[in-house]
Amino acid sequence: MEKIGEKVSKKTVKKRWPSYVWFPFIVACITIPLGFYLVNWSKQGVGAGLYSHQWVPDAIFAYWSPKEFYQSVDSVQGVFEGEQCITCHQGLAPGIVNDWKNSKHANPAEGKKTVYCNDCHGSDHQNLHMPTPDICATCHQQQHAQFMDEKRFGFPSHALAMERALDAGHFVDKPKAEVTACVQCHSVATKCDSCHSRHEFSAAEARRPEACITCHSGPPHPDDESYFASAHGKIYLAEGDTWDWSKPLKKGNYKVPTCAYCHMDNGKHQVANKSIWKFGIKQINPQTSSNEIKRNQWVNRCSECHEPNWSRQQLKTLDTERKLAWDKLNKAELLLRLLRSDKLLFPAAGNRPSYPNSYFDKIFPRERIGFFDGQASAFYNVSKIERDYFEMWYFDNLSAYKGAAHGDFMRVNISHLALDQKLIELQEQAIQIRRLSEQEKQANISPETDDFFNSGDYTDFNRENN
Amino acid sequence: MEKIGEKVSKKTVKKRWPSYVWFPFIVACITIPLGFYLVNWSKQGVGAGLYSHQWVPDAIFAYWSPKEFYQSVDSVQGVFEGEQCITCHQGLAPGIVNDWKNSKHANPAEGKKTVYCNDCHGSDHQNLHMPTPDICATCHQQQHAQFMDEKRFGFPSHALAMERALDAGHFVDKPKAEVTACVQCHSVATKCDSCHSRHEFSAAEARRPEACITCHSGPPHPDDESYFASAHGKIYLAEGDTWDWSKPLKKGNYKVPTCAYCHMDNGKHQVANKSIWKFGIKQINPQTSSNEIKRNQWVNRCSECHEPNWSRQQLKTLDTERKLAWDKLNKAELLLRLLRSDKLLFPAAGNRPSYPNSYFDKIFPRERIGFFDGQASAFYNVSKIERDYFEMWYFDNLSAYKGAAHGDFMRVNISHLALDQKLIELQEQAIQIRRLSEQEKQANISPETDDFFNSGDYTDFNRENN
Amino acid sequence: MEKIGEKVSKKTVKKRWPSYVWFPFIVACITIPLGFYLVNWSKQGVGAGLYSHQWVPDAIFAYWSPKEFYQSVDSVQGVFEGEQCITCHQGLAPGIVNDWKNSKHANPAEGKKTVYCNDCHGSDHQNLHMPTPDICATCHQQQHAQFMDEKRFGFPSHALAMERALDAGHFVDKPKAEVTACVQCHSVATKCDSCHSRHEFSAAEARRPEACITCHSGPPHPDDESYFASAHGKIYLAEGDTWDWSKPLKKGNYKVPTCAYCHMDNGKHQVANKSIWKFGIKQINPQTSSNEIKRNQWVNRCSECHEPNWSRQQLKTLDTERKLAWDKLNKAELLLRLLRSDKLLFPAAGNRPSYPNSYFDKIFPRERIGFFDGQASAFYNVSKIERDYFEMWYFDNLSAYKGAAHGDFMRVNISHLALDQKLIELQEQAIQIRRLSEQEKQANISPETDDFFNSGDYTDFNRENN
Repeated sequence: MEKIGEKVSKKTVKKRWPSYVWFPFIVACITIPLGFYLVNWSKQGVGAGLYSHQWVPDAIFAYWSPKEFYQSVDSVQGVFEGEQCITCHQGLAPGIVNDWKNSKHANPAEGKKTVYCNDCHGSDHQNLHMPTPDICATCHQQQHAQFMDEKRFGFPSHALAMERALDAGHFVDKPKAEVTACVQCHSVATKCDSCHSRHEFSAAEARRPEACITCHSGPPHPDDESYFASAHGKIYLAEGDTWDWSKPLKKGNYKVPTCAYCHMDNGKHQVANKSIWKFGIKQINPQTSSNEIKRNQWVNRCSECHEPNWSRQQLKTLDTERKLAWDKLNKAELLLRLLRSDKLLFPAAGNRPSYPNSYFDKIFPRERIGFFDGQASAFYNVSKIERDYFEMWYFDNLSAYKGAAHGDFMRVNISHLALDQKLIELQEQAIQIRRLSEQEKQANISPETDDFFNSGDYTDFNRENN
Repeated sequence: MEKIGEKVSKKTVKKRWPSYVWFPFIVACITIPLGFYLVNWSKQGVGAGLYSHQWVPDAIFAYWSPKEFYQSVDSVQGVFEGEQCITCHQGLAPGIVNDWKNSKHANPAEGKKTVYCNDCHGSDHQNLHMPTPDICATCHQQQHAQFMDEKRFGFPSHALAMERALDAGHFVDKPKAEVTACVQCHSVATKCDSCHSRHEFSAAEARRPEACITCHSGPPHPDDESYFASAHGKIYLAEGDTWDWSKPLKKGNYKVPTCAYCHMDNGKHQVANKSIWKFGIKQINPQTSSNEIKRNQWVNRCSECHEPNWSRQQLKTLDTERKLAWDKLNKAELLLRLLRSDKLLFPAAGNRPSYPNSYFDKIFPRERIGFFDGQASAFYNVSKIERDYFEMWYFDNLSAYKGAAHGDFMRVNISHLALDQKLIELQEQAIQIRRLSEQEKQANISPETDDFFNSGDYTDFNRENN
Repeated sequence: MEKIGEKVSKKTVKKRWPSYVWFPFIVACITIPLGFYLVNWSKQGVGAGLYSHQWVPDAIFAYWSPKEFYQSVDSVQGVFEGEQCITCHQGLAPGIVNDWKNSKHANPAEGKKTVYCNDCHGSDHQNLHMPTPDICATCHQQQHAQFMDEKRFGFPSHALAMERALDAGHFVDKPKAEVTACVQCHSVATKCDSCHSRHEFSAAEARRPEACITCHSGPPHPDDESYFASAHGKIYLAEGDTWDWSKPLKKGNYKVPTCAYCHMDNGKHQVANKSIWKFGIKQINPQTSSNEIKRNQWVNRCSECHEPNWSRQQLKTLDTERKLAWDKLNKAELLLRLLRSDKLLFPAAGNRPSYPNSYFDKIFPRERIGFFDGQASAFYNVSKIERDYFEMWYFDNLSAYKGAAHGDFMRVNISHLALDQKLIELQEQAIQIRRLSEQEKQANISPETDDFFNSGDYTDFNRENN
């Protein structure tokens, strides 16, 4: 018996894996493929991204994410190439043919061949396609590789712009008209003519700030206004038209820097390796060791024209501005958290629809206070004081940041005036909320709960066509 | 007796018209001429338009509506012509003489005669005039006829801009300083140098967006900002200075379109025949059969450079945006209407001055909620919640519209964020109004009526100098 | 006795000064030197200006007020001159050397000598300096004298910009990040490259509006937006790039005026002698005899292109606009004063920190209502209604003014819409404050005083690093 027992136990030792080994292993064998399958399935809907089953793309998306959505128009039959395309389209749309004629594609360097319409769009007129970055990469490998390299720095990033948008929960939540507006700029990831406009695809054009600011504008990222308001921008505005934009973005070639000069080292198609504060959306320690490396890159770039000491001080000025802005934002956030803990926020988290597609939010509804508590969903269905804080954080804070980063000091002042004003406004609201509630308590009135936020059109119109 | 009776009745039948014929006829004979007489009388005051007896023009109006108000300055005596004018004014104001020297007027095509100062201003120096469109029409008949043709499309319209302003009730209501500002742009109807600036009167100049945006700017019609923020605008900004603006506005002549390229078919001086949404002020069905004709015109124009399918989708994107904006506006309007029916708007319609010159409003005072309930008068003397809705409708809504119409998608996003924010703000105000009133009811307090809106300076300064 | 008496009295008359003579004299002998000593002492701190003991300059200040703060960087040893400097810096910072090569300094008129780096920065590389206006004045005496002449017109003034900022109490009160932003523009007094950007120092550049609007922009002085929105500005934007900017700012040389054309008579470096309304900050009588002189100067300048009558009417239009704006502001101010006299402003003056460094404010705390009651300090620690009035006065009012002054009539309209909106908003707040207080009185509730404004971080962060 013992022998058998020994044998068995030996065998067991040898052959049986303990349960803490095989159980997780089996679970992993099931869940990992299942996860892959589910993610894959969730992306197979008529829309795109993780919520592809929950929305239908607008026809216009075909032009912004062509790989996902473009379908050739069934017009002319036949296979055409080279000058054949030109001959016909010269009459149909002479403007874009003129652009092509001015391009390097039509006037290639010696020894290189002309790039015709069909090289990018295909030849079978029943089956044309819109050029995606990998089609451009057939010739422009280096630039494409640099562009894709941005992905390793995480979001925000040009290369990740489309997929992150399509995978976001609020992409489904937002009304289609707004999503369409988002996707237009996020298409920078899926087509090269966001910067090199068709059909000239000029490098010279993309070196000018106008190439960037079609998207980099508006309250959450006033890169255009802050640059043009700076001394750099003013000189560009007055004299830029006389400069030779065919020169590469190198030291000494331009009187003042443009967007691309500072953000793309010597024209490198990757703008993420110098990003310290990202979009100013979160509070960040600007002096971590990895940020010190980025700061040195900045100082080197600035020092192509300025004293290195001056350059370093400019970055410090930005640090000081950021600290001040976050002092104000944290102060405001505290006001809201105190209201929340006193149960004075109305509508409370439970009184409004949960963040779409978030099971976590369905089980544990949260007030939406600032970035970590709500992000994009903070746009909708919230009380005025939460919304006002969102505006303070998303508009005034980011405006101040861009002003400080681009040397638009007027903007720094104005935006901090706005932060102060919002802080006073929030404080006044908090006081009013407390006074009104105190009176209601004394008078034994309980205010009617209102369905405005929780159901009905306001919520519905956000989703009706998605 | 019978005979006589018969005779009489026969006579009556033959000769007397029944009262339902002659009575209205006589009334019409009196009222129609009386109406003409009254309208004529009402336009004979020292001001202009239907309320001409109720206001006095500022001296500066002489330059904006010269036919109505300009009087020659009594300076130099004598009759002067051609080079005589030039000789003297060369020394007095060399800048404008230089402009003339660069003009086609000074350098006419072969066989045409030079157009001198006196051809437009007159020769008798005691009796000079400012050139009005019909003076320009002496030579430029076709352009003038096209311009006047806009009238048949109704207002808004360049050709009707001045008369509609001068006939508007709130022209009298508004403070003079504001009316002056209005009239400056509305003078587009009464002088051609709004677009072709004096004294070069260049067609090339008027083809550039700057010619239009002196007026087409500001929150209610940010045509400038929305165009310049679009891909079209960015390319214009970066490269427009190098283009040949002497070319007509025809297919293939310009890399990107400008205002005039899209809105004036091949340079035709009439911009109303493609207007679908008008100014975005009212909710409109964009797919009536007459709008389908306009949509086709648009698609044709866009298709000079873009795929027709793309062009059609852009218009659909605009439809979607408009629907969403009006969903939000209607939601806000409902909030106000509910407050009104619960008698919670303060000041109520009866607590403030009636809309000026409106007898209807004197008898049936109305709250001013949105376009149909109040229009321009909504600017003054209203409660905060009515005013806030006005701002939502007049600024954020129109901004969203212009963004969608001109391809400025950032603006679409920002403006819809603002619409959402205003909706939350209005809802919060409605809640506060109800809570406060409920408490007052329970405590038997009736809030003091306040004379701030109904009398005193606020109302008076609107009218004092008019 | 009489004789002696007479003698004595005579003696007294002759030899003893009465106490009302010698007492003030002695007091003056003590206090005047003491005053000088104290002011001198107060300026000797590590900061600058009257409160120099209470703050520490940021390193970046070295570049903005170099005389006060710049210290040479201890890098290279040796004494260098002329081409030696160029040789080395050509490699280090080719951009700025290129600028110099394009300058008149590098290409002097015949008979004049080249101006090298060391002429402005010094030769000893261990002891370099930043060029201050008096260094530029070595050659450019006339321009410097004109510039300094502005001082006699009082503040606002370019020449006084830095010292008035550094002597202001709120310079100490404001967070460093904001002060830094202020000082950047105020450095116009302490370095000439605010307008003539380094190292080309071109007169042509400074004639263009871009030279001015790096500072003259933003809500409190939208000179840029109001000029560019005017007919003058639009023509400049469309055609300015083709003009010959080497021409002096004289009659007939430019198609439309720029900032410098109107504000600097024939290029004279003094812009204060035509200033009627100053910054629009105070209500001013525009028709005093001294203002009549200024008005004539304006009319003369405008009449270089326009009818003198037209020019005069434009100024009158500005008068009308100003009167209307102040009617609205005074109306708003009255609302606040009534709340104050009813003790309904919260926090009341005593509930918040006194204006920094003001002993008067410590003893007699004041509510901060408009310009005379508070000025800059109104930015912080005030109730919402006071703050909102500040915004109305500082942003909307000044925007209206700039619109009227520069011919941007759209801005006049929009800004007056904003003034109306704020007036309604303030009225609503006043009503709410009164209703809520009335209820609390009836219910015997006294609202908690809140420490938010009086102590803690909000106040502290304004001062922590100063």
